[in-house]
Amino acid sequence: MGVVIGVDIGGTKIAAALVDESGRILSSVRLQTRTELGREFVFEQLKGAIGELMEGAKSFGEEVLAVGMGSPGVIDPASGVVIKAAVNLPQWQGISLKQLVEEHFGVKAFVDNDVNVMALGECMFGVAAGLQNIIFIAIGTGIGGGIVIGGKLYHGSRFTAGEVGHITVIPDGPKCPCGNYGCLEALASGPVIARRAEEYMAKGVKTSLRTIAGDGRVTCELVAKVASDGDVLCRRLFEEAGRYIGIAISSLMNAINPDCVVIGGGVAQAGELILSPIRDEVALRALSPVPILQSRFGDSAGQIGAAALAWFYLKAVA
Amino acid sequence: MGVVIGVDIGGTKIAAALVDESGRILSSVRLQTRTELGREFVFEQLKGAIGELMEGAKSFGEEVLAVGMGSPGVIDPASGVVIKAAVNLPQWQGISLKQLVEEHFGVKAFVDNDVNVMALGECMFGVAAGLQNIIFIAIGTGIGGGIVIGGKLYHGSRFTAGEVGHITVIPDGPKCPCGNYGCLEALASGPVIARRAEEYMAKGVKTSLRTIAGDGRVTCELVAKVASDGDVLCRRLFEEAGRYIGIAISSLMNAINPDCVVIGGGVAQAGELILSPIRDEVALRALSPVPILQSRFGDSAGQIGAAALAWFYLKAVA
Repeated sequence: MGVVIGVDIGGTKIAAALVDESGRILSSVRLQTRTELGREFVFEQLKGAIGELMEGAKSFGEEVLAVGMGSPGVIDPASGVVIKAAVNLPQWQGISLKQLVEEHFGVKAFVDNDVNVMALGECMFGVAAGLQNIIFIAIGTGIGGGIVIGGKLYHGSRFTAGEVGHITVIPDGPKCPCGNYGCLEALASGPVIARRAEEYMAKGVKTSLRTIAGDGRVTCELVAKVASDGDVLCRRLFEEAGRYIGIAISSLMNAINPDCVVIGGGVAQAGELILSPIRDEVALRALSPVPILQSRFGDSAGQIGAAALAWFYLKAVA
Repeated sequence: MGVVIGVDIGGTKIAAALVDESGRILSSVRLQTRTELGREFVFEQLKGAIGELMEGAKSFGEEVLAVGMGSPGVIDPASGVVIKAAVNLPQWQGISLKQLVEEHFGVKAFVDNDVNVMALGECMFGVAAGLQNIIFIAIGTGIGGGIVIGGKLYHGSRFTAGEVGHITVIPDGPKCPCGNYGCLEALASGPVIARRAEEYMAKGVKTSLRTIAGDGRVTCELVAKVASDGDVLCRRLFEEAGRYIGIAISSLMNAINPDCVVIGGGVAQAGELILSPIRDEVALRALSPVPILQSRFGDSAGQIGAAALAWFYLKAVA
């Protein structure tokens, strides 16, 4: 039947996997990117990861039919060019990742924005399988989105559709690095949750986070851990973030009326801590609420999504 | 070449027009609906309006190829059934307007939500001609929207896409009849602008609106007239409404990245009074602002949109 390789190109790591037609991972590789060694070095790392899985495919007796890639930034999927690279991945600016891989390996390659491919992955193999219109929201260091309409990725007029992290939630709210005020990303990302925890601790609010964090850094992951042990402050921080996310999702549901909304990214790993307040807010605000589901793939969403992209195009041609 | 009939079915009037392939109106009829006389009477009024234009087509030597209709409420375009009628048009609940007209006149008929057809009309014949992805926002008694994606109307999973009037703009803002708080519609519709004017007058704010309105009712149209004569309060009311609309449009642009946004409905007739503050707010907030255009068709947007719907389906089949 053949397999594909899905590559999740991140700011600090490259994660790639050999994925079959049902979205199952047969094998995977993960490596830290050495961006400080320059563009050519990172290209070699990318080629190395793909090459390793190509060798691996042979041991399964499988042919690699295509390579799919997900990368941060604004990407033109037709040319595969990174039109606007992410701040932490300047080396890809103006590069066609598609051409790079096709020329080196002689296989078809496809590339799209990292959150877009996660949306497609959930729609093809995950919790949204079989649905036509979905919104995927990745909540992590930042907040991004991907939109599938009619079973296909929707890119908008300049490939920037899905910037749900920059929906205005509080018009006079905190300044966002994008220049706007009160963006969802400035109110509910992982680092914001961690920073709010530190602010409350500095004010002397009672929380077991203080003891558990010790002298170490407070992360959103740690806040989630302490919250799941019942700490009131930490639970409230997720409720607050969930409320903001729920406001943005309600507006999106009213405007787009999708079949469902899928929540992924690091913060989504907190599960019901964040999903429950999101659902409560949406129940209050949306005209016709639709299901809000947790991403099936967690950490692997990027690789499986990139593989989904490859399968999508292979099937579109067939 | 043939012509089509476009029918705008409103709460108080039926407006229908004979429209050629370029979107030009050849003739039109307009009548007050007598909803108080019951459903059958309104059906007869609808048939009468269409029948009159059918006769008119003969005098032009043109064949009527199809009837397109736009109606408030939630409509399933495939069956033509009004799934959820508008509050002021209960007689259409559960009725297939498509079937009604096809059986009576023996011509193809098509029906969609009234704001959806306005969006399609602008995309086929209006300011958005030639564009693929647009958002149309009708600002009047309420605030509604229509979304065109890939040159086709986008309906969402349950035909309710485009409810941009219920985007949350101020999470703790005024209560909206929909049950939510701080919806765009509760902050920037025509009646809200008029009510805000009355509130300021009651507080004794200096405005020539007081003299001009006299003992009569303050309408949004009157506020626009006084604003265009330079009255500071009235100008500010449009600036305030425009700011709220701009916040919602920025969020929509970030999420959907359309080719343009078209503003129609009664409030849009105020022109730059409302468009200029909308554009200012969008320039501050949107990641990649796209053009914000005034609807080309004003009062006729509903009829031309309904005709566009008919032409759209005729061409899709051909």
